[in-house]
Amino acid sequence: MTDTDIIVAPATAAGSALAVVRLSGAGCIALVNGVFHGADLTQLVGHRLAFGRIVQADQVLDEVLISVFRAPRSYTRQEVVEISCHGSPYILRQLVQLLCQRGARLAQPGEFTRRAFLNGALDLSQAEAVADLIAADSEAAQRLAMQQLRGGISHELKALREQLVHFAALLELELDFAEEDVEFANRSQLVDTINSTLQRVEALAGSFAAGNALKEGIPTVILGRPNAGKSTLLNALLQDARAIVSDIPGTTRDVIEDRLNLGGFSFRLTDTAGLREQAGDAIEAEGIRRSMERLSQAALVLFLYDAVAEDWQTAHAYFGSLPLPQGARALYLANKTELPATHPTPPEVLRLSARDGLGLAALRQQLVQHAEALQGGQDTLITHQRHYSALTAARTALQELRQGLEMGLSGEMVALDLRLALQHLGEITGEVTTDEVLGAIFSKFCIGK
Amino acid sequence: MTDTDIIVAPATAAGSALAVVRLSGAGCIALVNGVFHGADLTQLVGHRLAFGRIVQADQVLDEVLISVFRAPRSYTRQEVVEISCHGSPYILRQLVQLLCQRGARLAQPGEFTRRAFLNGALDLSQAEAVADLIAADSEAAQRLAMQQLRGGISHELKALREQLVHFAALLELELDFAEEDVEFANRSQLVDTINSTLQRVEALAGSFAAGNALKEGIPTVILGRPNAGKSTLLNALLQDARAIVSDIPGTTRDVIEDRLNLGGFSFRLTDTAGLREQAGDAIEAEGIRRSMERLSQAALVLFLYDAVAEDWQTAHAYFGSLPLPQGARALYLANKTELPATHPTPPEVLRLSARDGLGLAALRQQLVQHAEALQGGQDTLITHQRHYSALTAARTALQELRQGLEMGLSGEMVALDLRLALQHLGEITGEVTTDEVLGAIFSKFCIGK
Repeated sequence: MTDTDIIVAPATAAGSALAVVRLSGAGCIALVNGVFHGADLTQLVGHRLAFGRIVQADQVLDEVLISVFRAPRSYTRQEVVEISCHGSPYILRQLVQLLCQRGARLAQPGEFTRRAFLNGALDLSQAEAVADLIAADSEAAQRLAMQQLRGGISHELKALREQLVHFAALLELELDFAEEDVEFANRSQLVDTINSTLQRVEALAGSFAAGNALKEGIPTVILGRPNAGKSTLLNALLQDARAIVSDIPGTTRDVIEDRLNLGGFSFRLTDTAGLREQAGDAIEAEGIRRSMERLSQAALVLFLYDAVAEDWQTAHAYFGSLPLPQGARALYLANKTELPATHPTPPEVLRLSARDGLGLAALRQQLVQHAEALQGGQDTLITHQRHYSALTAARTALQELRQGLEMGLSGEMVALDLRLALQHLGEITGEVTTDEVLGAIFSKFCIGK
Repeated sequence: MTDTDIIVAPATAAGSALAVVRLSGAGCIALVNGVFHGADLTQLVGHRLAFGRIVQADQVLDEVLISVFRAPRSYTRQEVVEISCHGSPYILRQLVQLLCQRGARLAQPGEFTRRAFLNGALDLSQAEAVADLIAADSEAAQRLAMQQLRGGISHELKALREQLVHFAALLELELDFAEEDVEFANRSQLVDTINSTLQRVEALAGSFAAGNALKEGIPTVILGRPNAGKSTLLNALLQDARAIVSDIPGTTRDVIEDRLNLGGFSFRLTDTAGLREQAGDAIEAEGIRRSMERLSQAALVLFLYDAVAEDWQTAHAYFGSLPLPQGARALYLANKTELPATHPTPPEVLRLSARDGLGLAALRQQLVQHAEALQGGQDTLITHQRHYSALTAARTALQELRQGLEMGLSGEMVALDLRLALQHLGEITGEVTTDEVLGAIFSKFCIGK
């Protein structure tokens, strides 16, 4: 595989009004021109459209619209052609086949974006944002992806790296004059810079939980004792009979998950088996084990109790005994308030009737508020595990660097640690990268992008 | 609904690398320009591409590529904009919603093509070919659609109509001079024209069976006695275990259909319940009834018999007793020839082992030959029921016209029949049409076309 030959791929699915086939690589305009009857595409300047016919073995395959892009004013910075044809599966297949016969090669997933990265149109975090944007299914996910695509993370990392690069240069200058025992790099200024960088790196790494939740959907778990009405609440929120409900405690055994979109946020709403101190049988025990597993991954926990069967003190004591994961938020919900004999509840508890839909509007509002709190405060949120790993590695290197400076380590060792920190920060934007890393990133892309 | 306001619709499905949203109507360039940050679209001449951002409430919704078409150089002959965005379902939904907030209206299915028709870019049979082209799943179907789109039927009908219009004008001139009892229209020339027109109309109407079979898939039925190996043959042709097979006669009860693509043709291959003179029970009787129903719709019948259990004479006599539909072709297949004790077969019978795949290549070749015979001979094939109905109505009017002329009917009556024939021929290309007809045609289109 080279990054200069002509690649081709459908960029849309067939079966719609139209389909688009995309080519990239020097010579692709002439290649398409060879099967096109209409204007001479090789004479067109960039950003032009031409209508005409694709001809295969003297037969008109389709009437198409051709978009011509001249290097470097294109997505990949190479010569690019987009062919908009009728969305027939047969035509799409034939067209791609014809172009391959004429010398193009079927593109790998993400290969257009890979070329855009290699040619400097995007850095690596921006390239990853392209896939995020295509996958975005909520306003929150779209905003995060767009911010990343528009260089939100890149700019921040660039600023951090520049300060460190400045010191790295001075330290290496010292090494050149090692025999003279000079210090070009002011050690106390360097410690200050490391501290401020560490603070920002830690804040970015710390934003991963929130960023990931907003991108993938906020993991929201409904927990409570058997028969508290958890499945009824799930169904009411989804406005769908997603989970089976009955009066029999323990009806839900499996973990049931569905996606809820509210106020521009996506919630991964999970209904779980009811929690009892002593499981009745092995199936219930397994259900409870899974409930606890989901609890450990939750960003938001809806503690639901039956306000007829239990008073708040008992319920609260019980919920307090469950391990809320770090950073997760809890909402306390008293259910079955449609019945007259409910215990009183303090103001922090939301009174619900999941059955009759009472209190659901207030609950939805609180869910959105929690999501906004996750989003709020920070300008840049990290949403990729890869970025998080690089940031924690950079943090470790910076901490060791600081420690080394405190211990009066030699300039050579300090310079080494500094280079390591820079390398980890550079991994995120792809200033430092390997074919393996690129392969892992772009293989997750869809074809034609 | 008017045909001049601004309509908008997605022209591709979401979930791919990119998605396209299309607008048509005077002012749509300015409308899009209002949410676009980049070049001033209103200053662009037609057939230009511009890269920029769609902005909604101060947030960047997406980075997009805009195609601008100026009237009348566009698909609809109106001002048209196409927006190529990232293929996220969220972005696609938001974008269409944003454009609707700015004054566009969601397009009906086929409304872009309807406008193209109303503005004279296409006639009605060409407009129908657009939907055919999108649905085409074989080379044969694509060729028919492309021929129709490129005016194959339109040109032929135009020539036929022109000759008749000439006489209609003369006949109406006679009516203006009715008191003078003159004959401008030469009656014997008129009869000649009617005869040649009738011949061509009948040929076109007669091509419907073949045209429809090539477009929708050639209805091919496998028939034979129970346990002849029909399901084994179906599976072998499809290279898939589509039908359940066993040694028990009568395993197949339902009619099983699947699509087979061979040599650029699509076959609707049907496996049927085995035929016995006396059905064992009500289920078998119903299965046999359905087999016979499929036989009546077949263009190609594969008569399959067990060459171990039966000799050719017996099998042939039996097949001869079944009603082959008019115009359908039959192929005779002797199965189970992998077994030693098979009866001899005459040259017109193809020897098969459906189980071991023997003779399948020859069978596939014969299927393609039959399809080519269906396609061959005629330049123009009718593929729409609507065209067929109009042609048969035109034929009736022309026959009555000829009869009227022979009976020496008055010029007034002759002119009436001639107008009727012209009207039916004009229905096909849409020279004569109603909102109801247009509604029925375009409602079957996909959205965005």
